[in-house]
Amino acid sequence: MSIFFGIDIGGTNTKAGIFDRNGDITAFVENPTPQSGGIEAIMALIGELFDFFELSPKDITAIGIGVPGPVDRNGVVYNPPNLHGWGEIDFKTLIANFLKYPTGKIAIGNDANYAGLAEYYFGNGARADPMVLLTLGTGIGGAVILNGEPMTGKDGFAAELGHIIIAPDGPRCGCGRKGCAEAFISHTGIVKTAWDILKKDKGSLLWGMIGGKFDELTPKVILEAANLGDPAAYKIINITARYLGMFLADLINIFNPERIVIGGGISQMGKQMFEPAKKIAQKQALKYLARSATIVRAKFYQKAGMIGAAVAAMKIAGLNANM
Amino acid sequence: MSIFFGIDIGGTNTKAGIFDRNGDITAFVENPTPQSGGIEAIMALIGELFDFFELSPKDITAIGIGVPGPVDRNGVVYNPPNLHGWGEIDFKTLIANFLKYPTGKIAIGNDANYAGLAEYYFGNGARADPMVLLTLGTGIGGAVILNGEPMTGKDGFAAELGHIIIAPDGPRCGCGRKGCAEAFISHTGIVKTAWDILKKDKGSLLWGMIGGKFDELTPKVILEAANLGDPAAYKIINITARYLGMFLADLINIFNPERIVIGGGISQMGKQMFEPAKKIAQKQALKYLARSATIVRAKFYQKAGMIGAAVAAMKIAGLNANM
Repeated sequence: MSIFFGIDIGGTNTKAGIFDRNGDITAFVENPTPQSGGIEAIMALIGELFDFFELSPKDITAIGIGVPGPVDRNGVVYNPPNLHGWGEIDFKTLIANFLKYPTGKIAIGNDANYAGLAEYYFGNGARADPMVLLTLGTGIGGAVILNGEPMTGKDGFAAELGHIIIAPDGPRCGCGRKGCAEAFISHTGIVKTAWDILKKDKGSLLWGMIGGKFDELTPKVILEAANLGDPAAYKIINITARYLGMFLADLINIFNPERIVIGGGISQMGKQMFEPAKKIAQKQALKYLARSATIVRAKFYQKAGMIGAAVAAMKIAGLNANM
Repeated sequence: MSIFFGIDIGGTNTKAGIFDRNGDITAFVENPTPQSGGIEAIMALIGELFDFFELSPKDITAIGIGVPGPVDRNGVVYNPPNLHGWGEIDFKTLIANFLKYPTGKIAIGNDANYAGLAEYYFGNGARADPMVLLTLGTGIGGAVILNGEPMTGKDGFAAELGHIIIAPDGPRCGCGRKGCAEAFISHTGIVKTAWDILKKDKGSLLWGMIGGKFDELTPKVILEAANLGDPAAYKIINITARYLGMFLADLINIFNPERIVIGGGISQMGKQMFEPAKKIAQKQALKYLARSATIVRAKFYQKAGMIGAAVAAMKIAGLNANM
């Protein structure tokens, strides 16, 4: 029997699951990601996951581990911004030595690429070719799945889709540039747009709902205010939808995708944002490319990275055909 | 002996060459592209090319034809904007019937993709993987070569790289959107930037050189004025370089390319534009991706599409290994 172990190391939580070859999950656990202790603490956590599942590495057909940062073709991880104290580290070799497990049965990859694999094989990507995944959360994760494989580029770092310019005089992005897609169409970006509008509209329902406190401002409360008919909330959603539509049109023109799958926390904002964004994308993209591209919401939410890590494990075990 | 026929149908001229399997050209001819008579006139021209070379289709190992517009995987061409009266046409079947030549030995493709193949196999792309080609001319042509093949997308229309947003309040692009890369970093875009600056600086050297006439304004005369020390000309070049730098940073973040190759008429503008653009790109792109990407000028200028058409012919003849 083939057993696959999928692990998704997130900035906040680490998720792990045991999967069979059909992608069905037979056990799942979620733990806080250690915020100190660096790589050793993560290794210890991975050891504990095996104990929790009462499994030894030798029971496992292959292991996939998703990491929130750049990962090269050899499993070297480069300074993941939300994992402190990692630096540039040969994570695959470290894990192999720690678990006494062959490197050839360990897949290490970027979490967005793994989320893309999850949607492609088992989710709403439905093996569309090409399939583009966007994860709209704290930042923007991107993956481009070409014929069932993530587009990796020279080093494995490709598809940093959140870091293309939407408006060069826009807000400063975490990457240092101004006006990247991520600076507009992420949790941070939407909240920034909202705050700029609300500061000038303190009579709005939304301003009252957050008690004038920046920290209370979230995509969720913005959607709630919109559902109650607040014009300020609608304005925020419409501005964000316009940027999202422009961004989607760019991706259609670049990749001629069969499908774009949108996941992450922001994807919960619902039809109020996605329907206008889709219309803008279809209008702005080149006609012959726009007509092929469907835009759908992701099937998996928080578990996409972990499921994709298991897919990567299946792939290195040569189980493509079974999926 | 293998003989390949490469044809590049341009909006203005049609170029044709006979190639051996090493990519060496043994005969070349350039003719004006018929501006009336539609597809029949083009077919007649292709017949004349065979006569000119004193060849019959049966002498040819394979034929490649580049077209300036969308071409799908079956060789159907969709309304090329600069070829009047084409519409949506099954060009491969038409050519095969006209020449009495098997469709399996005819490659029809987009001219930018073919220029990408030319640079990848025989030019300054030097088999870098991935390699991105930009042709900066009247518009922007784009190609992404992944492992020796153009990235095609679902239909064959991918890599419309000129139609991604650089500044959403920028000039209207030919595609209907505002502020696409093509609206800034093409012949048309540069001339527009220049005119806006010169109208406010009628004492400039460049204004004098063009006698205040819009029609005299070209990238070439702008470069000449810059070489004579004209501040207005420098300003135009610097503005364009900034947009080009932003655009290149986007492409680095999207594709993690090993190399970006820049061709087309605008690439003749020289170091004054390309050196600052490269610096901006390296500064704005994500660090781990920027360090892998070299940016070079194309080897082939006007003949890239034709050479790439011959490469496509070699590929369908199964001659990959020999190249």
